[in-house]
Amino acid sequence: MKPKLKIIPLGGAGEIGKNMTLVEYADAILVVDAGLMFPETDMLGVDIVIPDIAYLLERREQVRAIIITHGHEDHIGALPYILPRINVPIYATPLTRGLIQVKLKAHKLLKDATLCTFEMGDTIQLDPFTIETFHVSHSVPDGVGLAITTPRGTIVHSGDFKFDPSPVDGQLTDFAKLAALGGRGVLALLSDSTNADSPGHTPSEKTIDESFARVFALAQARVIVATFASNISRIQQVIDTAARFNRKVAVVGRSMQDNVKMAMELGYLRAPENTLIKMEQARKYEPKEIAIVCTGGQGEPTSALARMAARDHKQVTLVPGDTVILSAAPIPGNEEMINQTLNNLFRTGADVYYSEFMNVHVSGHASREEQKLMINLLRPQHFIPIHGEYRHLVLHARLAQSLGIPKENVFVVENGALIEFDDQGAHVEHNAVAASDVLVDGLGIGDVGTTVLRDRHHLSQDGFLVALVTLDAHTGEIVFGPEIITHGFVYTQAAEVLIQGTKQIIIETLSNGARGAGQSAKLKDVLSQFLYAQTKRRPMVIPVVTEV
Amino acid sequence: MKPKLKIIPLGGAGEIGKNMTLVEYADAILVVDAGLMFPETDMLGVDIVIPDIAYLLERREQVRAIIITHGHEDHIGALPYILPRINVPIYATPLTRGLIQVKLKAHKLLKDATLCTFEMGDTIQLDPFTIETFHVSHSVPDGVGLAITTPRGTIVHSGDFKFDPSPVDGQLTDFAKLAALGGRGVLALLSDSTNADSPGHTPSEKTIDESFARVFALAQARVIVATFASNISRIQQVIDTAARFNRKVAVVGRSMQDNVKMAMELGYLRAPENTLIKMEQARKYEPKEIAIVCTGGQGEPTSALARMAARDHKQVTLVPGDTVILSAAPIPGNEEMINQTLNNLFRTGADVYYSEFMNVHVSGHASREEQKLMINLLRPQHFIPIHGEYRHLVLHARLAQSLGIPKENVFVVENGALIEFDDQGAHVEHNAVAASDVLVDGLGIGDVGTTVLRDRHHLSQDGFLVALVTLDAHTGEIVFGPEIITHGFVYTQAAEVLIQGTKQIIIETLSNGARGAGQSAKLKDVLSQFLYAQTKRRPMVIPVVTEV
Repeated sequence: MKPKLKIIPLGGAGEIGKNMTLVEYADAILVVDAGLMFPETDMLGVDIVIPDIAYLLERREQVRAIIITHGHEDHIGALPYILPRINVPIYATPLTRGLIQVKLKAHKLLKDATLCTFEMGDTIQLDPFTIETFHVSHSVPDGVGLAITTPRGTIVHSGDFKFDPSPVDGQLTDFAKLAALGGRGVLALLSDSTNADSPGHTPSEKTIDESFARVFALAQARVIVATFASNISRIQQVIDTAARFNRKVAVVGRSMQDNVKMAMELGYLRAPENTLIKMEQARKYEPKEIAIVCTGGQGEPTSALARMAARDHKQVTLVPGDTVILSAAPIPGNEEMINQTLNNLFRTGADVYYSEFMNVHVSGHASREEQKLMINLLRPQHFIPIHGEYRHLVLHARLAQSLGIPKENVFVVENGALIEFDDQGAHVEHNAVAASDVLVDGLGIGDVGTTVLRDRHHLSQDGFLVALVTLDAHTGEIVFGPEIITHGFVYTQAAEVLIQGTKQIIIETLSNGARGAGQSAKLKDVLSQFLYAQTKRRPMVIPVVTEV
Repeated sequence: MKPKLKIIPLGGAGEIGKNMTLVEYADAILVVDAGLMFPETDMLGVDIVIPDIAYLLERREQVRAIIITHGHEDHIGALPYILPRINVPIYATPLTRGLIQVKLKAHKLLKDATLCTFEMGDTIQLDPFTIETFHVSHSVPDGVGLAITTPRGTIVHSGDFKFDPSPVDGQLTDFAKLAALGGRGVLALLSDSTNADSPGHTPSEKTIDESFARVFALAQARVIVATFASNISRIQQVIDTAARFNRKVAVVGRSMQDNVKMAMELGYLRAPENTLIKMEQARKYEPKEIAIVCTGGQGEPTSALARMAARDHKQVTLVPGDTVILSAAPIPGNEEMINQTLNNLFRTGADVYYSEFMNVHVSGHASREEQKLMINLLRPQHFIPIHGEYRHLVLHARLAQSLGIPKENVFVVENGALIEFDDQGAHVEHNAVAASDVLVDGLGIGDVGTTVLRDRHHLSQDGFLVALVTLDAHTGEIVFGPEIITHGFVYTQAAEVLIQGTKQIIIETLSNGARGAGQSAKLKDVLSQFLYAQTKRRPMVIPVVTEV
């Protein structure tokens, strides 16, 4: 009997972010993507979230390579955290490799990494896997999907795709290859579900050119365009429009500058001679001769755009007459931050355009009609929706069923599921593999878990109150305190009466109660009840009774 | 010289929520609306936000009345917090009054309140104000705009409006009255800016009927529709569609039940006989004969819908085959909560429809073409955009200018501004009146301010660490400790080395340093630096050195 073929999503199944999928055959594991996710609102104090790679660490010798579909954070962002623990070769197209290099360099990890480059359309042989790569259009150039052939058949991973009929880089999604793969037979398709709730087709990136042109034509002074640092296509559109309207372009924001430099060198960004200038040179030109492209598409407080909005940017002070374009869509959870940045931008007096108000951004992902086309071209035996929250996976699964894929061959799975193909067919085991969110906070990777988050949540809502009292070990009399330390609970300068009442309760409780083991627990109960009755708030109450 | 006429927004100018506008002439103040706002993400632990009424409290005798434009939370929700401090008559239409009564009753404030009812179209005389009321269509019936005439002219307040050509209650926005007011002359228009970034027209509420019918026609078992408790029009649409498809309707969720009962009694909700049933009776019917309308349009964790999604609702357990419609749009900041609820709903196996995926919700507010129509009908001398975040106010202001209102007569102002009309014309003074956010947290109204919120934010990100040590007052030797209490910083069970290191630092610092005043501050610095170097986190560090 041939070995089983296994597919294991470690990230991206049930969430939009931290993508990582394993394909395993015999004693070989291929890792597709290694992305990060930005923390959800309830992950207080967390910097980023990465996939759990325990399964890989236990099988370190079996891991052949990590192959990256494209250079976005949710596909490459975990590499700096994973490589120090499992340093296997990374395969990527030239631009994707460039984006990875910029990232690894910033983490001082570039020297030790093994980066292997392939061109879109290349076939990579990593026994027992034969990996055919094919271009898919997305909001960054040089993205690919993968057809991974094993002795048990071919698994197709769509990558992040759309069927843009007029992409910025002119490179269409590779219909011919998809049709050929469909003709040869596809065992299973793993397909991008991000927009499974969006009817129709995603508008082409080209439609943004028209909006940019309208805005540039009206602009009387500088035009500032904010987007993701890795959105090379959008940066190209800014450069093209600026050149058309005789403006120079300055790039602001370190990560974007690094990416632009790299993409120019590799030939993925093109600019007419003397179009790109440094921000320091901008004062030599009239405002009407300047365009600026910068980071801040999510309104991140440290980004160039948010600093400009808060009048806190060293190089760019916005004035009435300037025009700002926010060319990005909010990642769920960032809406308030973006709205705040937009409001601040308007406060500067600038003219501001954003996607509700004008078509200055389109999604990089396929809508439902394009998702159908992917399925129809490949006609897979099995269908596994990935890269989506649970609702997107279900909607995508139902879409596949409506196209004739039998219900029993469609697998809605979340991170940690194991999908096995053997002689009997395909089986799913949910929660087969450890695949929890690994939280990165400062230097800590994975040490912040439920307990710490629960405490942070509790503290965030009602703060804490530490009650200190020192007793004489012999007599039990109070020799110090009660002292109250409280933060985040009440404004202490206005809560004198409450604090005095709290101290009184402590004295009464200690004089009535038995000393010893149960004392702190009792004090905690009594204090918590008292404080809730007085305030209807529940601070974290910590009594500390010491004896000297 | 005639007295000045003053307009002062205390809420809703620069935000969508807690609406309150003052119109003041001579020694009389009229208050329009008294709404609440849901806390922004950075208002940690806060329950709700209400307007600052200090200005009113200082002029208690001058306040004639509070007149309410319609019965939504952001227009009536502050009443329970304001009335105990300033108990003036409240004027409202019958349904709005009913919604206020339900609310005041829940707060045990109904008995002491003075509620005065008027019908849409009535004129109310409250010297020196003559208040003509006119119907505006919105997502709740019985809403009005106001034309407030004073000896200095007429101020028109649009209320929350749209020009729905086919509203659920059949009541159009009163074009004729608006045109007549425009003919008589309007000194200033205050107009709803919510959708100032939405081009075109807001779709009619009637379009939802078609979507509901499509979903009901397909549904094989129960249909559950979630919306706002006060969205009487949407509830009517559920009842109508259910009746059409021979389903009974059960209302789930206390606040919605109270509102439905009241609206039925007043005749604002109509249901064919025997259509409404209690949830307990539902088991007598087939699933296909049942529709449920419930609260939870924002995915609020305590709402009926969120409980159903979490399989935690006492009366309704969702099963595959059930259909759920989320008929609401997210308030900014609630997107993640709603997405989580949607994902959980899909996990039950139910068919779920929401506004991205199908047209099951429309906005209650005018889009740009309707905003233009309001301005063109009234042709005001001055224009003041209200009910919007800053960006909406600016976009609405520019829209008014584009229609010919001179720039110097268009006032973009935020809460606390004073707009004065006198013989010389109109003047604006920004920040003239106290109008900060008043935060309600438990029993506390306004005691949570910057300090408490800053502490909560700090604690939410990195927790705290209290270092306790007791010294002998004579020798300075340590007689107790160092003890470390820490929450929300590190997982202490895995941080033994860090805690030991922290204690060591304390001992060293105390043995090296001078005792007395600077000791705690020094200890705090040394510990903070040590902890940051070890973890790249910055917990709130609180050293407590006592002497006995």
